[in-house]
Amino acid sequence: MKEIKIGLLGLGNIGTGTYKTLEMNRDIIEKELGTKVNIVKILEKDIDRERDITVTREQFVSDPEDIFMDPEIDIVIELLGGVEPAATFMERAMDCGKHVVTANKAAVAANYPRLTEAAMRNGVMFKFEASVGGGIPVLTSLKGAARANRYTEVLGIVNGTTNYILHKMSKEDMDYDTALKDAQEKGFAEADPTADVEGIDAANKLSILMALMFDKYVHPDDIPTTGITHITKEMIEESAARDCVIKLIAHATVQEDGEITYEVRPTNIRTYHPLANVLEEYNAVYVKGNLVGKLMFYGPGAGPLPTGSAVMGDVMEISKALLR
Amino acid sequence: MKEIKIGLLGLGNIGTGTYKTLEMNRDIIEKELGTKVNIVKILEKDIDRERDITVTREQFVSDPEDIFMDPEIDIVIELLGGVEPAATFMERAMDCGKHVVTANKAAVAANYPRLTEAAMRNGVMFKFEASVGGGIPVLTSLKGAARANRYTEVLGIVNGTTNYILHKMSKEDMDYDTALKDAQEKGFAEADPTADVEGIDAANKLSILMALMFDKYVHPDDIPTTGITHITKEMIEESAARDCVIKLIAHATVQEDGEITYEVRPTNIRTYHPLANVLEEYNAVYVKGNLVGKLMFYGPGAGPLPTGSAVMGDVMEISKALLR
Repeated sequence: MKEIKIGLLGLGNIGTGTYKTLEMNRDIIEKELGTKVNIVKILEKDIDRERDITVTREQFVSDPEDIFMDPEIDIVIELLGGVEPAATFMERAMDCGKHVVTANKAAVAANYPRLTEAAMRNGVMFKFEASVGGGIPVLTSLKGAARANRYTEVLGIVNGTTNYILHKMSKEDMDYDTALKDAQEKGFAEADPTADVEGIDAANKLSILMALMFDKYVHPDDIPTTGITHITKEMIEESAARDCVIKLIAHATVQEDGEITYEVRPTNIRTYHPLANVLEEYNAVYVKGNLVGKLMFYGPGAGPLPTGSAVMGDVMEISKALLR
Repeated sequence: MKEIKIGLLGLGNIGTGTYKTLEMNRDIIEKELGTKVNIVKILEKDIDRERDITVTREQFVSDPEDIFMDPEIDIVIELLGGVEPAATFMERAMDCGKHVVTANKAAVAANYPRLTEAAMRNGVMFKFEASVGGGIPVLTSLKGAARANRYTEVLGIVNGTTNYILHKMSKEDMDYDTALKDAQEKGFAEADPTADVEGIDAANKLSILMALMFDKYVHPDDIPTTGITHITKEMIEESAARDCVIKLIAHATVQEDGEITYEVRPTNIRTYHPLANVLEEYNAVYVKGNLVGKLMFYGPGAGPLPTGSAVMGDVMEISKALLR
C-alpha cells in the first residue's frame, strides 16, 4: 500500500513534539492506517539544535519549494507559528496539490476565508484541529460526529496561560503579578505574555470556532476582547462569595433574530458548572446544539505532545481518505 | 448527486427522535453533505401511534428483508434495542452490503467481535457512536482525532440514571429509594431499573470502550460490576467529609505489564476533578493517552434527540465516505 509522505514546515517545540509523536506511537498509527507514514522533508534553519529525536541532515531543506514541488509529498504540516509567512506557505502548498495540516491559530484566524477557499479551489483537505484547544478533539467533533446540530452557543476556556493565572489567584490567593511570574517560571506564560493575557490568543480561537460552528467569519481584530490584567484579588474574592469563579471566556451566542454576538472577557462561572472545574492550564470548550443540548470537551490546550496528538490525528484522517 | 437512502429498524422513542433530527435539521445535514438524505423504509409494527413526525403508511414495512434486500438503501439504522433480534438483523444487513449505524449498546457489547467481523467481511462501515455516552462524540474522537495516542486509562460516568440518583442523594439529601422514585417520575429511570442501578448498562459501555481503546474485547458479563443499590446517605456524607463525591465509574487501566484491569463500581471522586461536576443525568468519559495526557468528553448520555444527534453524525460520516 501507498506510503504517506509528509513535509514539515518548522522544527521548533511544536514541530519537534509532532515529530516525536510519530516516533513514540508509530506502531499504533501505522497499524490503524495499514501503511507507513514518514516525515521526509523538514523546512528549518536551525539544523544543529539538540532535539532528542532521530532526524538526519538529509531531511532538512532551506527552500520551502523543495517541499511544495516534491511530487512524492502528500501532506504538508505547517508549524512555523505567526501569521506570515505561514499563511502564504499554506496557500502555496495547497496550490501545489498538497493537503495541509496546521496548529497555527493566528494564521488560520487571520486568513480563514483565503485558506478554506484555497482548499476548495484545489480540491485538497485543510485541517487545523490543534489550532483550538490544543490536544482536545473539539473541531473534528463539531464538524463531524455532532455536525447534525444547529449550534446556538459556545463558551470556551481556550487559553491555558490565563486559566493558569486565574487558577493560582483563586486557589492560592496570589495577586496577578505573582501568578504571572509563577506561570512564566513554570513555562505556562511567555516572557512577553501580551497575546495571552490581553485575550488576543482567545479571540483567534473564537474566530475559528465561530467560522466552523456558525459559518460566520469574524476577523479576530473585530472581536471585542478584554484580557485579565485588571483582575484583582478582591474581584476573585467577590466572585467566590457569590459561588462563582472568574474564567476568561470566549463566548458567542446566536440571538433569537439570528444575529450572532461575540466577545472575549473575564466571566463569572457558577462553581457547579462543568467549566468551573477546568483548573490550572487546562482548556475546555462548552457548546450548545439544538439536538444534543450541552456538550463539553476538556483537555490540554497546549504543549508539544498534546498539540502533536491533534496534528497527527488530522494527518491520520487525511491519510484514511487518501487510502480509501 | 446521489441521494442517501436509509432503512430504519424500530420507530420507538429513539427511532422517533432520530427521525425528528432529520426533520428539524435537514437543511444543515443536506448542506454539509451536498445531497438529499431520506429515511425511506421503517421496520415497525405499531404504525398507528401518534409520534409528532411526518411519516406515511407506505414507509412502514413488516418484513426486515424488505429493507435488507432493497438495492436503493445505502444505510441501515438499528434502533430496536435489546440484544436479539437486533444483532442478527445488523449482521444480515451488513451481509446484504448495507452500512450499519446503531445506538444499541447491549447488542454491540454482547456481539462486538461478530459485528465488527461482519463489517470487515463485507467491506461496509459499522458505526455506533450513540451506544456510549448518548449524544457525546466520544467514540468517534477516540477512534479519529485522538487515535494517535496509546491509551492507558478510561474512567466513565456512562449511565445517566445512576448519576441522577447519586446526584439527588448527594445534593438534596435523599435516601436511595426516594431518589430512585424521583428519577422514575422524571423519566430518568425505568419502571424496572435493574440494568441501570446494578451497573449492567455501564458494563456494556465499558466493554465497547475497551474494545475501541485497547483493542481488547471483554464480554460485559465478564466485567466485575457493582451497582449503587447499597449506597446509603451515610456513605455519601462520609465521602463528602473527605472532599469527594460518589460516582458510578466504569474504569479500565493498562497496568505496567500491559495487563488491563477493569471494573464498574461506585467510586470516590475528588470534588476538584472534572468528573465531580458531572451532575444530574449527564455523562462524561475521561481518558488518558500517552501524547495528550487527559481528555474528558461531557454531555447528555441519553434521550431521543441527543441519541439522534449521534446516530445522524454516524450517518453523515458514512455518507461523506460514500459521496467521495
